[in-house]
Amino acid sequence: MAAYKSIPPLSVLVEQLERLPGVGHKSAERLAYHVLTMPEADAQKLTGAISNARSKIRYCSICCNLSDSELCPICSDSSRDRSVICVVEDPKDIFAFEKTNEFNMTYHVLHGVLSPMQNIGPDDLKIKELLARLSGDEVKEVIMGLSSTVTGEATSMYLSKLIKPMGIKVTRLGFGIPVGADLEYADEVTLKRSVSTRTEI
Amino acid sequence: MAAYKSIPPLSVLVEQLERLPGVGHKSAERLAYHVLTMPEADAQKLTGAISNARSKIRYCSICCNLSDSELCPICSDSSRDRSVICVVEDPKDIFAFEKTNEFNMTYHVLHGVLSPMQNIGPDDLKIKELLARLSGDEVKEVIMGLSSTVTGEATSMYLSKLIKPMGIKVTRLGFGIPVGADLEYADEVTLKRSVSTRTEI
Repeated sequence: MAAYKSIPPLSVLVEQLERLPGVGHKSAERLAYHVLTMPEADAQKLTGAISNARSKIRYCSICCNLSDSELCPICSDSSRDRSVICVVEDPKDIFAFEKTNEFNMTYHVLHGVLSPMQNIGPDDLKIKELLARLSGDEVKEVIMGLSSTVTGEATSMYLSKLIKPMGIKVTRLGFGIPVGADLEYADEVTLKRSVSTRTEI
Repeated sequence: MAAYKSIPPLSVLVEQLERLPGVGHKSAERLAYHVLTMPEADAQKLTGAISNARSKIRYCSICCNLSDSELCPICSDSSRDRSVICVVEDPKDIFAFEKTNEFNMTYHVLHGVLSPMQNIGPDDLKIKELLARLSGDEVKEVIMGLSSTVTGEATSMYLSKLIKPMGIKVTRLGFGIPVGADLEYADEVTLKRSVSTRTEI
Protein backbone atom coordinates (compact mmCIF):
# COMPACT_ATOMS: atom_id res chain seq x y z
CA MET A 1 0.00 0.00 0.00
CA ALA A 2 1.38 3.36 -0.96
CA ALA A 3 2.46 5.42 2.01
CA TYR A 4 0.43 8.45 1.00
CA LYS A 5 -2.76 6.49 1.66
CA SER A 6 -2.05 7.18 5.33
CA ILE A 7 -2.09 10.95 4.69
CA PRO A 8 -5.82 11.50 4.06
CA PRO A 9 -5.76 15.04 2.57
CA LEU A 10 -3.24 13.80 0.03
CA SER A 11 -5.03 10.57 -0.85
CA VAL A 12 -8.32 12.47 -1.27
CA LEU A 13 -6.60 14.90 -3.62
CA VAL A 14 -5.11 12.08 -5.71
CA GLU A 15 -8.53 10.40 -5.82
CA GLN A 16 -10.25 13.56 -7.05
CA LEU A 17 -7.60 14.29 -9.68
CA GLU A 18 -7.80 10.70 -10.89
CA ARG A 19 -11.45 11.24 -11.80
CA LEU A 20 -10.52 13.82 -14.45
CA PRO A 21 -10.60 12.53 -18.04
CA GLY A 22 -7.27 11.27 -19.34
CA VAL A 23 -5.68 11.37 -15.88
CA GLY A 24 -4.50 7.97 -14.68
CA HIS A 25 -3.29 7.07 -11.22
CA LYS A 26 0.34 7.97 -11.92
CA SER A 27 -0.54 11.35 -13.45
CA ALA A 28 -2.91 12.06 -10.56
CA GLU A 29 -0.05 11.48 -8.12
CA ARG A 30 2.20 13.76 -10.12
CA LEU A 31 -0.47 16.46 -10.34
CA ALA A 32 -1.14 16.17 -6.60
CA TYR A 33 2.51 16.82 -5.74
CA HIS A 34 2.59 19.69 -8.17
CA VAL A 35 -0.55 21.20 -6.70
CA LEU A 36 0.85 20.82 -3.18
CA THR A 37 4.18 22.39 -3.94
CA MET A 38 3.08 25.23 -6.21
CA PRO A 39 3.16 28.77 -4.77
CA GLU A 40 0.02 29.78 -2.87
CA ALA A 41 -0.81 32.46 -5.46
CA ASP A 42 -0.81 29.88 -8.26
CA ALA A 43 -2.97 27.48 -6.28
CA GLN A 44 -5.49 30.22 -5.66
CA LYS A 45 -5.47 31.11 -9.36
CA LEU A 46 -6.22 27.48 -10.20
CA THR A 47 -9.09 26.93 -7.74
CA GLY A 48 -10.34 30.45 -8.45
CA ALA A 49 -10.41 29.77 -12.19
CA ILE A 50 -12.44 26.60 -11.62
CA SER A 51 -15.01 28.23 -9.33
CA ASN A 52 -15.18 31.40 -11.42
CA ALA A 53 -15.69 29.52 -14.69
CA ARG A 54 -18.34 27.33 -13.10
CA SER A 55 -20.26 30.24 -11.64
CA LYS A 56 -20.02 32.53 -14.68
CA ILE A 57 -20.44 30.10 -17.54
CA ARG A 58 -23.86 29.03 -18.73
CA TYR A 59 -25.44 27.93 -22.00
CA CYS A 60 -26.08 30.47 -24.76
CA SER A 61 -29.86 30.94 -24.93
CA ILE A 62 -29.83 30.42 -28.70
CA CYS A 63 -27.31 27.72 -29.55
CA CYS A 64 -26.55 26.16 -26.13
CA ASN A 65 -22.82 26.83 -26.56
CA LEU A 66 -20.86 27.75 -23.43
CA SER A 67 -21.07 31.47 -22.75
CA ASP A 68 -20.47 34.01 -20.02
CA SER A 69 -23.48 36.07 -21.05
CA GLU A 70 -27.00 35.57 -22.41
CA LEU A 71 -25.64 34.99 -25.93
CA CYS A 72 -22.37 33.33 -26.88
CA PRO A 73 -19.82 35.32 -28.93
CA ILE A 74 -20.98 33.60 -32.12
CA CYS A 75 -24.71 34.17 -31.66
CA SER A 76 -24.14 37.79 -30.64
CA ASP A 77 -22.07 38.42 -33.79
CA SER A 78 -24.48 40.03 -36.28
CA SER A 79 -22.24 39.22 -39.27
CA ARG A 80 -22.87 35.49 -38.78
CA ASP A 81 -24.98 33.61 -41.29
CA ARG A 82 -28.07 32.53 -39.37
CA SER A 83 -29.42 30.59 -42.35
CA VAL A 84 -26.90 27.78 -41.86
CA ILE A 85 -26.77 25.91 -38.54
CA CYS A 86 -24.14 23.29 -37.85
CA VAL A 87 -25.33 20.79 -35.23
CA VAL A 88 -22.52 19.53 -32.97
CA GLU A 89 -22.26 17.18 -30.02
CA ASP A 90 -20.50 19.51 -27.61
CA PRO A 91 -18.92 22.97 -27.35
CA LYS A 92 -15.43 21.60 -28.04
CA ASP A 93 -16.60 20.80 -31.57
CA ILE A 94 -17.56 24.42 -32.23
CA PHE A 95 -14.04 25.46 -31.36
CA ALA A 96 -12.68 22.84 -33.73
CA PHE A 97 -14.75 24.28 -36.61
CA GLU A 98 -13.92 27.86 -35.61
CA LYS A 99 -10.20 27.16 -35.58
CA THR A 100 -10.35 26.63 -39.34
CA ASN A 101 -11.34 30.32 -39.73
CA GLU A 102 -13.30 29.18 -42.76
CA PHE A 103 -16.94 29.38 -41.78
CA ASN A 104 -19.44 32.04 -41.03
CA MET A 105 -22.24 29.66 -40.02
CA THR A 106 -23.92 29.44 -36.64
CA TYR A 107 -24.04 26.34 -34.44
CA HIS A 108 -26.28 24.32 -32.22
CA VAL A 109 -24.86 22.22 -29.40
CA LEU A 110 -26.83 19.07 -28.56
CA HIS A 111 -24.74 18.35 -25.45
CA GLY A 112 -24.55 14.68 -26.28
CA VAL A 113 -25.86 12.22 -28.85
CA LEU A 114 -28.68 9.72 -28.69
CA SER A 115 -27.52 6.56 -26.97
CA PRO A 116 -30.04 3.94 -25.83
CA MET A 117 -27.19 2.03 -24.18
CA GLN A 118 -26.46 4.97 -21.89
CA ASN A 119 -30.13 5.84 -21.55
CA ILE A 120 -29.75 9.13 -23.44
CA GLY A 121 -32.97 9.89 -25.32
CA PRO A 122 -34.14 12.93 -27.33
CA ASP A 123 -35.32 14.71 -24.18
CA ASP A 124 -31.82 14.61 -22.71
CA LEU A 125 -30.40 16.58 -25.63
CA LYS A 126 -31.01 20.17 -26.79
CA ILE A 127 -33.28 18.99 -29.63
CA LYS A 128 -36.35 20.97 -28.54
CA GLU A 129 -34.20 24.11 -28.64
CA LEU A 130 -32.94 23.23 -32.13
CA LEU A 131 -36.43 22.66 -33.52
CA ALA A 132 -37.58 25.97 -32.01
CA ARG A 133 -34.83 27.76 -33.94
CA LEU A 134 -35.95 26.10 -37.17
CA SER A 135 -39.59 27.11 -36.88
CA GLY A 136 -39.01 30.53 -38.51
CA ASP A 137 -38.19 31.08 -42.18
CA GLU A 138 -34.60 32.09 -41.62
CA VAL A 139 -32.82 28.71 -41.61
CA LYS A 140 -32.05 27.21 -45.05
CA GLU A 141 -29.64 24.43 -44.15
CA VAL A 142 -28.74 22.28 -41.16
CA ILE A 143 -25.33 20.60 -41.29
CA MET A 144 -24.97 17.49 -39.13
CA GLY A 145 -21.53 18.07 -37.68
CA LEU A 146 -21.59 14.91 -35.56
CA SER A 147 -18.96 12.20 -35.32
CA SER A 148 -19.27 9.32 -37.68
CA THR A 149 -19.79 6.83 -34.84
CA VAL A 150 -22.82 4.56 -34.46
CA THR A 151 -24.47 6.94 -31.99
CA GLY A 152 -23.48 10.04 -33.98
CA GLU A 153 -24.92 8.56 -37.18
CA ALA A 154 -28.12 7.49 -35.47
CA THR A 155 -28.57 10.99 -34.05
CA SER A 156 -28.02 12.53 -37.50
CA MET A 157 -30.64 10.24 -39.01
CA TYR A 158 -33.11 10.94 -36.22
CA LEU A 159 -32.72 14.72 -36.57
CA SER A 160 -32.80 14.63 -40.33
CA LYS A 161 -36.15 12.83 -40.24
CA LEU A 162 -37.51 15.60 -38.01
CA ILE A 163 -36.03 18.50 -39.96
CA LYS A 164 -36.50 17.53 -43.61
CA PRO A 165 -40.32 17.73 -43.45
CA MET A 166 -39.89 21.38 -42.43
CA GLY A 167 -38.50 22.04 -45.91
CA ILE A 168 -34.97 22.66 -44.65
CA LYS A 169 -31.95 21.15 -46.39
CA VAL A 170 -30.08 18.69 -44.17
CA THR A 171 -26.46 17.87 -45.00
CA ARG A 172 -23.68 15.89 -43.37
CA LEU A 173 -19.90 16.22 -43.27
CA GLY A 174 -18.00 14.59 -46.15
CA PHE A 175 -16.36 11.23 -45.61
CA GLY A 176 -12.82 10.66 -46.80
CA ILE A 177 -9.22 10.32 -45.78
CA PRO A 178 -8.00 12.93 -43.30
CA VAL A 179 -5.76 15.56 -44.91
CA GLY A 180 -2.09 14.76 -44.28
CA ALA A 181 -2.85 11.24 -43.09
CA ASP A 182 -1.00 8.23 -44.37
CA LEU A 183 -3.21 6.01 -46.55
CA GLU A 184 -1.67 2.99 -44.90
CA TYR A 185 -3.48 3.81 -41.65
CA ALA A 186 -6.89 4.56 -43.14
CA ASP A 187 -9.51 1.93 -42.34
CA GLU A 188 -11.31 0.09 -45.12
CA VAL A 189 -14.66 1.80 -44.71
CA THR A 190 -13.08 5.26 -44.87
CA LEU A 191 -11.04 4.24 -47.89
CA LYS A 192 -14.11 2.88 -49.65
CA ARG A 193 -15.96 6.11 -48.92
CA SER A 194 -13.04 8.20 -50.09
CA VAL A 195 -13.15 6.48 -53.48
CA SER A 196 -16.87 7.05 -53.85
CA THR A 197 -16.47 10.73 -52.92
CA ARG A 198 -13.47 11.25 -55.23
CA THR A 199 -13.20 14.57 -57.06
CA GLU A 200 -11.61 15.54 -60.37
CA ILE A 201 -8.30 17.42 -60.21
CA MET B 1 -8.25 32.31 -32.87
CA ALA B 2 -10.29 29.79 -30.96
CA ALA B 3 -13.76 31.02 -30.12
CA TYR B 4 -13.41 30.33 -26.41
CA LYS B 5 -10.80 33.09 -26.17
CA SER B 6 -13.74 35.46 -26.23
CA ILE B 7 -15.22 33.80 -23.11
CA PRO B 8 -12.76 35.01 -20.44
CA PRO B 9 -13.72 32.68 -17.54
CA LEU B 10 -13.18 29.74 -19.88
CA SER B 11 -9.92 30.93 -21.38
CA VAL B 12 -8.53 31.67 -17.90
CA LEU B 13 -9.47 28.16 -16.80
CA VAL B 14 -7.77 26.59 -19.84
CA GLU B 15 -4.70 28.73 -19.18
CA GLN B 16 -4.47 27.63 -15.55
CA LEU B 17 -4.98 23.96 -16.36
CA GLU B 18 -2.34 24.18 -19.08
CA ARG B 19 0.23 25.12 -16.46
CA LEU B 20 -0.09 21.73 -14.76
CA PRO B 21 2.69 19.26 -15.53
CA GLY B 22 1.97 16.92 -18.43
CA VAL B 23 -1.11 18.88 -19.50
CA GLY B 24 -0.86 20.31 -23.02
CA HIS B 25 -3.22 22.75 -24.67
CA LYS B 26 -5.56 20.10 -26.00
CA SER B 27 -5.81 18.27 -22.66
CA ALA B 28 -6.34 21.59 -20.87
CA GLU B 29 -9.32 22.30 -23.14
CA ARG B 30 -10.72 18.84 -22.51
CA LEU B 31 -10.23 19.18 -18.75
CA ALA B 32 -11.86 22.62 -18.79
CA TYR B 33 -15.02 21.27 -20.46
CA HIS B 34 -15.09 18.40 -18.04
CA VAL B 35 -14.69 20.71 -15.06
CA LEU B 36 -17.45 22.97 -16.39
CA THR B 37 -19.91 20.20 -17.02
CA MET B 38 -19.30 18.04 -13.96
CA PRO B 39 -21.97 18.07 -11.20
CA GLU B 40 -21.59 20.88 -8.66
CA ALA B 41 -20.89 18.40 -5.85
CA ASP B 42 -17.96 16.92 -7.78
CA ALA B 43 -16.55 20.34 -8.58
CA GLN B 44 -16.66 21.28 -4.92
CA LYS B 45 -14.98 18.00 -4.00
CA LEU B 46 -12.17 18.80 -6.45
CA THR B 47 -11.51 22.40 -5.37
CA GLY B 48 -12.07 21.39 -1.75
CA ALA B 49 -9.50 18.59 -2.05
CA ILE B 50 -6.95 21.06 -3.45
CA SER B 51 -7.48 23.69 -0.76
CA ASN B 52 -7.74 21.12 2.02
CA ALA B 53 -4.56 19.30 0.99
CA ARG B 54 -2.71 22.59 0.69
CA SER B 55 -3.80 23.84 4.08
CA LYS B 56 -3.34 20.56 5.98
CA ILE B 57 -0.18 19.18 4.44
CA ARG B 58 3.23 20.25 5.65
CA TYR B 59 6.70 18.74 5.89
CA CYS B 60 7.44 16.05 8.47
CA SER B 61 9.69 17.67 11.06
CA ILE B 62 12.15 14.76 10.85
CA CYS B 63 12.40 13.61 7.23
CA CYS B 64 10.71 16.50 5.35
CA ASN B 65 8.25 14.07 3.72
CA LEU B 66 4.71 15.35 3.14
CA SER B 67 2.58 14.87 6.22
CA ASP B 68 -0.68 16.03 7.75
CA SER B 69 0.80 16.05 11.26
CA GLU B 70 4.10 16.87 12.98
CA LEU B 71 5.57 13.51 11.94
CA CYS B 72 4.88 11.60 8.73
CA PRO B 73 3.44 8.05 8.96
CA ILE B 74 6.90 6.58 8.44
CA CYS B 75 8.72 8.65 11.05
CA SER B 76 5.94 8.10 13.58
CA ASP B 77 6.13 4.32 13.07
CA SER B 78 8.29 3.01 15.90
CA SER B 79 9.03 -0.28 14.12
CA ARG B 80 11.02 1.56 11.44
CA ASP B 81 14.76 1.14 11.32
CA ARG B 82 16.17 4.57 12.14
CA SER B 83 19.74 3.40 11.53
CA VAL B 84 19.26 3.41 7.75
CA ILE B 85 18.20 6.60 5.98
CA CYS B 86 17.43 6.63 2.28
CA VAL B 87 17.93 10.11 0.79
CA VAL B 88 15.47 10.94 -2.01
CA GLU B 89 14.78 13.92 -4.22
CA ASP B 90 11.06 14.31 -3.50
CA PRO B 91 8.17 12.66 -1.64
CA LYS B 92 7.04 10.77 -4.78
CA ASP B 93 10.23 8.74 -4.52
CA ILE B 94 9.41 7.59 -1.00
CA PHE B 95 6.12 6.23 -2.29
CA ALA B 96 7.96 4.41 -5.06
CA PHE B 97 10.21 2.67 -2.51
CA GLU B 98 7.30 2.00 -0.17
CA LYS B 99 5.24 0.37 -2.91
CA THR B 100 7.79 -2.43 -3.02
CA ASN B 101 6.77 -3.38 0.55
CA GLU B 102 10.36 -4.50 0.98
CA PHE B 103 12.03 -1.97 3.21
CA ASN B 104 11.86 -0.92 6.78
CA MET B 105 14.25 2.00 6.43
CA THR B 106 13.49 5.66 7.06
CA TYR B 107 13.85 8.43 4.47
CA HIS B 108 15.01 11.96 4.03
CA VAL B 109 13.52 14.19 1.33
CA LEU B 110 15.88 16.81 -0.10
CA HIS B 111 13.11 18.52 -2.08
CA GLY B 112 15.31 18.84 -5.12
CA VAL B 113 18.87 18.16 -6.19
CA LEU B 114 21.86 20.48 -6.57
CA SER B 115 21.69 22.26 -9.91
CA PRO B 116 23.97 25.22 -10.58
CA MET B 117 22.15 25.74 -13.90
CA GLN B 118 18.88 26.31 -12.07
CA ASN B 119 20.56 28.17 -9.24
CA ILE B 120 19.76 25.44 -6.70
CA GLY B 121 22.53 25.30 -4.09
CA PRO B 122 22.92 23.31 -0.85
CA ASP B 123 20.94 25.93 1.11
CA ASP B 124 17.90 25.39 -1.11
CA LEU B 125 17.71 21.71 -0.18
CA LYS B 126 16.96 19.99 3.13
CA ILE B 127 20.64 19.17 3.67
CA LYS B 128 20.99 20.98 7.01
CA GLU B 129 18.09 18.88 8.29
CA LEU B 130 19.75 15.68 7.05
CA LEU B 131 23.08 16.48 8.70
CA ALA B 132 21.27 17.28 11.97
CA ARG B 133 19.73 13.79 11.90
CA LEU B 134 23.15 12.22 11.41
CA SER B 135 24.80 13.97 14.36
CA GLY B 136 23.67 11.33 16.88
CA ASP B 137 24.98 7.77 17.04
CA GLU B 138 21.86 6.11 15.72
CA VAL B 139 22.43 6.27 11.95
CA LYS B 140 24.69 3.57 10.50
CA GLU B 141 24.02 3.94 6.78
CA VAL B 142 22.80 6.56 4.35
CA ILE B 143 21.54 5.25 0.99
CA MET B 144 21.63 7.77 -1.85
CA GLY B 145 18.28 7.06 -3.50
CA LEU B 146 18.71 9.78 -6.11
CA SER B 147 18.26 9.48 -9.87
CA SER B 148 21.27 8.58 -11.89
CA THR B 149 21.21 11.92 -13.74
CA VAL B 150 24.06 14.43 -13.82
CA THR B 151 22.48 16.53 -11.08
CA GLY B 152 21.43 13.48 -9.06
CA GLU B 153 24.95 12.03 -9.21
CA ALA B 154 26.55 15.37 -8.30
CA THR B 155 24.25 15.66 -5.30
CA SER B 156 25.11 12.11 -4.19
CA MET B 157 28.83 12.90 -4.41
CA TYR B 158 28.41 16.18 -2.55
CA LEU B 159 26.47 14.56 0.28
CA SER B 160 28.75 11.56 0.48
CA LYS B 161 31.75 13.87 0.99
CA LEU B 162 29.93 15.52 3.89
CA ILE B 163 28.64 12.31 5.48
CA LYS B 164 31.56 9.88 5.16
CA PRO B 165 33.81 11.86 7.57
CA MET B 166 31.08 11.37 10.21
CA GLY B 167 31.91 7.63 10.14
CA ILE B 168 28.62 6.69 8.50
CA LYS B 169 28.45 4.25 5.61
CA VAL B 170 27.21 5.87 2.39
CA THR B 171 25.79 3.64 -0.35
CA ARG B 172 24.06 4.17 -3.67
CA LEU B 173 21.42 2.25 -5.62
CA GLY B 174 22.70 -0.54 -7.85
CA PHE B 175 23.07 0.07 -11.56
CA GLY B 176 21.77 -2.50 -14.00
CA ILE B 177 19.05 -3.38 -16.45
CA PRO B 178 15.51 -2.72 -15.24
CA VAL B 179 13.64 -5.93 -14.36
CA GLY B 180 11.35 -6.98 -17.19
CA ALA B 181 12.97 -4.58 -19.66
CA ASP B 182 14.10 -5.68 -23.09
CA LEU B 183 17.89 -5.74 -23.43
CA GLU B 184 17.52 -4.22 -26.88
CA TYR B 185 16.40 -0.93 -25.36
CA ALA B 186 19.05 -0.70 -22.66
CA ASP B 187 21.59 2.06 -23.29
CA GLU B 188 25.30 1.18 -23.50
CA VAL B 189 26.30 2.70 -20.19
CA THR B 190 23.61 0.77 -18.34
CA LEU B 191 24.57 -2.42 -20.15
CA LYS B 192 28.24 -1.95 -19.31
CA ARG B 193 27.33 -1.36 -15.65
CA SER B 194 25.05 -4.40 -15.63
CA VAL B 195 27.96 -6.61 -16.72
CA SER B 196 30.25 -5.23 -14.04
CA THR B 197 27.54 -5.73 -11.38
CA ARG B 198 26.69 -9.29 -12.58
CA THR B 199 25.84 -11.88 -9.96
CA GLU B 200 26.25 -15.67 -9.88
CA ILE B 201 23.11 -17.73 -10.35
